[in-house]
Amino acid sequence: MHTVEITRVEEFSASHRLHDPRLSDDENRALYGICNNPNGHGHNYELHVTVAGKVAESGMVMNLTDLMAILAERVLPTVDHKHLNHDVPFLDGIIPTAENIAIALWNEIERELAPHEPCRLVRIKLHESRSNYVEYRGPSS
Amino acid sequence: MHTVEITRVEEFSASHRLHDPRLSDDENRALYGICNNPNGHGHNYELHVTVAGKVAESGMVMNLTDLMAILAERVLPTVDHKHLNHDVPFLDGIIPTAENIAIALWNEIERELAPHEPCRLVRIKLHESRSNYVEYRGPSS
Amino acid sequence: MHTVEITRVEEFSASHRLHDPRLSDDENRALYGICNNPNGHGHNYELHVTVAGKVAESGMVMNLTDLMAILAERVLPTVDHKHLNHDVPFLDGIIPTAENIAIALWNEIERELAPHEPCRLVRIKLHESRSNYVEYRGPSS
Amino acid sequence: MHTVEITRVEEFSASHRLHDPRLSDDENRALYGICNNPNGHGHNYELHVTVAGKVAESGMVMNLTDLMAILAERVLPTVDHKHLNHDVPFLDGIIPTAENIAIALWNEIERELAPHEPCRLVRIKLHESRSNYVEYRGPSS
Amino acid sequence: MHTVEITRVEEFSASHRLHDPRLSDDENRALYGICNNPNGHGHNYELHVTVAGKVAESGMVMNLTDLMAILAERVLPTVDHKHLNHDVPFLDGIIPTAENIAIALWNEIERELAPHEPCRLVRIKLHESRSNYVEYRGPSS
Amino acid sequence: MHTVEITRVEEFSASHRLHDPRLSDDENRALYGICNNPNGHGHNYELHVTVAGKVAESGMVMNLTDLMAILAERVLPTVDHKHLNHDVPFLDGIIPTAENIAIALWNEIERELAPHEPCRLVRIKLHESRSNYVEYRGPSS
Repeated sequence: MHTVEITRVEEFSASHRLHDPRLSDDENRALYGICNNPNGHGHNYELHVTVAGKVAESGMVMNLTDLMAILAERVLPTVDHKHLNHDVPFLDGIIPTAENIAIALWNEIERELAPHEPCRLVRIKLHESRSNYVEYRGPSS
Repeated sequence: MHTVEITRVEEFSASHRLHDPRLSDDENRALYGICNNPNGHGHNYELHVTVAGKVAESGMVMNLTDLMAILAERVLPTVDHKHLNHDVPFLDGIIPTAENIAIALWNEIERELAPHEPCRLVRIKLHESRSNYVEYRGPSS
Repeated sequence: MHTVEITRVEEFSASHRLHDPRLSDDENRALYGICNNPNGHGHNYELHVTVAGKVAESGMVMNLTDLMAILAERVLPTVDHKHLNHDVPFLDGIIPTAENIAIALWNEIERELAPHEPCRLVRIKLHESRSNYVEYRGPSS
Repeated sequence: MHTVEITRVEEFSASHRLHDPRLSDDENRALYGICNNPNGHGHNYELHVTVAGKVAESGMVMNLTDLMAILAERVLPTVDHKHLNHDVPFLDGIIPTAENIAIALWNEIERELAPHEPCRLVRIKLHESRSNYVEYRGPSS
Repeated sequence: MHTVEITRVEEFSASHRLHDPRLSDDENRALYGICNNPNGHGHNYELHVTVAGKVAESGMVMNLTDLMAILAERVLPTVDHKHLNHDVPFLDGIIPTAENIAIALWNEIERELAPHEPCRLVRIKLHESRSNYVEYRGPSS
Repeated sequence: MHTVEITRVEEFSASHRLHDPRLSDDENRALYGICNNPNGHGHNYELHVTVAGKVAESGMVMNLTDLMAILAERVLPTVDHKHLNHDVPFLDGIIPTAENIAIALWNEIERELAPHEPCRLVRIKLHESRSNYVEYRGPSS
């Protein structure tokens, strides 16, 4: 049996503001620059979710329909067309940098994938724009 | 002499909320759906600015350096990393749909291009996402 | 009031075979080459649907939600994950070249848009691959 | 000497149907959904072939011309404009999921690369669409 | 019968230098900036060639195989992996701006298309980079 | 604390010629093919620079503004709109294949990143075109 990684790509549109309440306004501006704009700004985020596993007799690592359903029903509605600082319970109190969003999405998605073991989440890749992206491979990486 | 169109593509990240103050909250939700989320959401907008003119002896319709400078110095700073409902004077009182943003950007850019006549702005194409874009060819179109 | 064009981009995956039953097998192979392969082949088609109209007080030419619903509910299910020679009633008896698919989709979509007059369908752009696309602007073009 | 990975990207258009002859029609529909459509459907597959090796005095890991020739002459003609269930000997009896196609292409390409040792195939990445892709790093991964 | 436009997209890699021999070195630097670098620079040009015509009984405006052959055999070899200032007879004495290259390619391609009348070349779109492109619709536009 | 990789994508346009002065002209043509064209050719290179580190209290692995400044001020001006064989001191005497450019850029960028330890450069990915790219993970990989 062969180990293969499958990736589903989704998009969501959201706004955010980088601001650390432990810092002064001047410190925030110095640290986050234009991303500290009080009214926030936004992105079309492109999310790549990668799951690894053995290829079953079906020819599939995991039924892509199941992965699509998890993302479409459980994950994307929590962030799409939302303000990441205000509208997302699992980001509450977290500065919504791309790094932190990726880690938070890992936790959300990993929990949903538990019934699909031994398939396992192996990578979250999050593009904030065509020019910036982050990759997270989990807490043990 | 040949007429050629040249296009410069730029990106900006901004947030917006679709909301018409003349309508009730229910009417706004019915009309704009998730785009009416009170805290707004955002996009990476991709802006295509097209200028037409005769090709001069330089081989150029217009010096692309000039078009890039207009956009980088006069236009993009007004919208990049901004909230389009709150931070942009030329969008004040305008519902920031892609259609309205394109028309407003046409007006801003056309004024800046006046010194470059007889080159003329002929098209603004604004992508709100990979799946949605609008095109505006000016008030006489 | 300003005329603006709005475009929605959708994708569908389908298979097809180029074969003219009025021609011999040799003539078909000479005309259509590898696209005449008896078992067919397939593409991820990218469909751009462009609607033009005046911008209403809502800031919209047409509610994008309506256009998305027409495509998602009435158009895409007829062609996505289908064999265009066998599974699509409105392509029955039509050789499914990109040109003919674009014309047929125009007819399907224009009928659905009738309730949205005076908005009007102005362009169907259909990408068969990254390297090939066709554009159709209606019977009067 | 430095180890570098070089990747060549190619495209092919093919049709397929996901169907397991060991299952009933109902089971197949439940398992594969719209991908079980009896007449099949198709994709523009994007194939990324990655070879790793030491950079030689030529400045190259492997002459890209050789890799291009292997793909253009030995690999792509077997799958481009084909029906993957019916037209491809090395997929005979294999359910043509993206996972299985990637593994089968690995085997085909690795054999062709044998004369280029110590360069070695290290990754096959196969995009079925803009939203779905798989990665395979060989039987020992 | 319906008029449809078909477009073929090709790429070529070339170098060029923007320099007008009628101007001084200082004037050239002022006019062309970094594009006047004496040793030149280069691009992956993306060329879109659009042909319009009536859809024939074959379902095709023009056999795409013919258009591909014209470009692959007659046009691309003249510019791909070339220096546009030195290696291309039809650009001799022409400052190779994107505008001038598009016009010159129009002339080359239009001549090759003559046997395919009444199909006619209607647009050359030439991308110099992801951010800059030009469009030319012929001498009568 | 979590390890995350952040990537910045930049583009530069440059020309180059593949030619080994230790070989005869015939040997060079046999080895490098059209890339040996005496007048050179060019590309729009797409450069992905990946830095790994722990996510700090700021929510960032490294301030992206710093990485952007390093690339915009110290790296891109050395290669953008240049001839890689003649204009770039750190490529002097090096055959500018994509492999060698990636290694040389690694060395330039790693030195600039030294003040940002313990963040570390982990990958340089360099696209020479849509179809060819190389990846380098450093001398210890």
